[in-house]
Amino acid sequence: MKCRRCRAPAVIDVRRHNAGFCADCFTRHCREQVRRAIDDHEMIAPGQRVLVAVSGGKDSLGLWHLLRALGYETDGLYVGLGIGEYSDESGDSARAFAHEHGWPLLEVDLRATYGFDVPSGARAIRRVPCSACGLSKRHVFNDAARANGYDVLATGHNLDDEAAVLLGNVLRWETGYLGRQHPVLPAAPGFVQKVKPLVRLGERELAAYCVLTGIDYIVEECPMAAGNRHLGYKELLNEIEERSPGTKAAFLFGFLERGHERFAADAVEERADLHPCPECGAPTPADVCSFCRLRARATRVIPVAAENSA
Amino acid sequence: MKCRRCRAPAVIDVRRHNAGFCADCFTRHCREQVRRAIDDHEMIAPGQRVLVAVSGGKDSLGLWHLLRALGYETDGLYVGLGIGEYSDESGDSARAFAHEHGWPLLEVDLRATYGFDVPSGARAIRRVPCSACGLSKRHVFNDAARANGYDVLATGHNLDDEAAVLLGNVLRWETGYLGRQHPVLPAAPGFVQKVKPLVRLGERELAAYCVLTGIDYIVEECPMAAGNRHLGYKELLNEIEERSPGTKAAFLFGFLERGHERFAADAVEERADLHPCPECGAPTPADVCSFCRLRARATRVIPVAAENSA
Repeated sequence: MKCRRCRAPAVIDVRRHNAGFCADCFTRHCREQVRRAIDDHEMIAPGQRVLVAVSGGKDSLGLWHLLRALGYETDGLYVGLGIGEYSDESGDSARAFAHEHGWPLLEVDLRATYGFDVPSGARAIRRVPCSACGLSKRHVFNDAARANGYDVLATGHNLDDEAAVLLGNVLRWETGYLGRQHPVLPAAPGFVQKVKPLVRLGERELAAYCVLTGIDYIVEECPMAAGNRHLGYKELLNEIEERSPGTKAAFLFGFLERGHERFAADAVEERADLHPCPECGAPTPADVCSFCRLRARATRVIPVAAENSA
Repeated sequence: MKCRRCRAPAVIDVRRHNAGFCADCFTRHCREQVRRAIDDHEMIAPGQRVLVAVSGGKDSLGLWHLLRALGYETDGLYVGLGIGEYSDESGDSARAFAHEHGWPLLEVDLRATYGFDVPSGARAIRRVPCSACGLSKRHVFNDAARANGYDVLATGHNLDDEAAVLLGNVLRWETGYLGRQHPVLPAAPGFVQKVKPLVRLGERELAAYCVLTGIDYIVEECPMAAGNRHLGYKELLNEIEERSPGTKAAFLFGFLERGHERFAADAVEERADLHPCPECGAPTPADVCSFCRLRARATRVIPVAAENSA
């Protein structure tokens, strides 16, 4: 197979595009896909300060590398979630990458700053860890971006992630979530703008990008996510993609072109009735925001007697 | 396990309802689901004449039996599609059932009436057989119902069928198809009303209904459908259902409650610009309707020389 662009021997084939690429043309292809996502969805305006959330994995490090390659002087944000060895290694990976390139990395440790971590938080609210983790990350990302004067927060959600989330939302016709599922969640009082510049690149493309550009990422996946619904949806979409290459992209992009706007009003409704949380100031529709409720339950001092009898 | 209603020993459990039923209560449950579908979606008005399309399989014979049990004096329609032994056996099954109950069965043979069958039609238009078959059935069902003075045509599409079609439509965001996907397609000039009274019952429930009420149906599936996309979507949904019972029903009913109306305008647009086909009189947006085009290509006399050189 030859590179679609320069006819040199290809090192990767992208079935969805029915095309092979050499290493140089492939990294250019990745940059172009990110450029196109940013332009199409007006993710970043000139002069805006961008913070990228990094976990040490292929998607977030790849994203940081790509944004820098496109000329955005993005800084990184690493949040320590306290998930045992996995968090230790993912922090090491993020720090090593930042240090190697000399790019600033902000760090927030969930336990040191808020007094709990993902495992203890999940136990406290009796929810699956991914639920406590997502809730915490959304809050801390927004908090850290605002506190440090960033306008935009970028995350490494790729095409596979977004298609799997979309499948879950569609299977339950979660109209509010469908209205909010978009590569850009615009800034609003108390919220920085959230963007997903990797929506045009699949998981396999990100892994190849990292390998070809020498990015040393943590390969291990979060051990707490194993067997969750989201991964189940990813597997199902991979089965469909195997039979009909391009289905995932058609599903996600078709939604963005022809589906999303039909649900947008449902999301606006949800955002209409927000006020600042009395504990932390973050916008919330409830008395106290869900992060502060999680924190309160996870950091409550349990009397010794009660603990023993549990 | 005991029957949810009468506490007698259960003969079937319906995981989606998290309930077991004895034979009598299960057949009552099936009737109630059909009654509810008919009422909720206003499928049949008092005094309307209903024709049910029967293939000899569990869904269509079950539907005919259920409609009669609910007091609708429904007649049957069998269309001979010319799919070898499968069609022979499915015709025998439909005829035996109609004869046993003394219910009128109309018959239309595709080859005898229109000069081609599904295999030759599919070859002529170089499409998969399911495409030529669906096109032909839609046309012949409507034609037969109108010619014989019926107001409503009922088909045996069940919850599994409809969920699989919905998945295919959603994966490609076929907005026109999504707008048309509904248990009722209302009457319009040239069209009788089409209804799907089995949308609240799954494949497994229909099979159990037939077994428990002594309906002798043809178990064999159409050999030409093997490996088609629709069956692939069914398998995927079965995998999801296995992990989370109730997903299929939530997917379909959620769409009908919260999704469908957002796409309805796209379907109306497609139906707005119809005129009678000059060949057969059926409404069509094209010069000649797609059934007549299929028929013309399938019945074209091919010169012997051309056939030999093919």
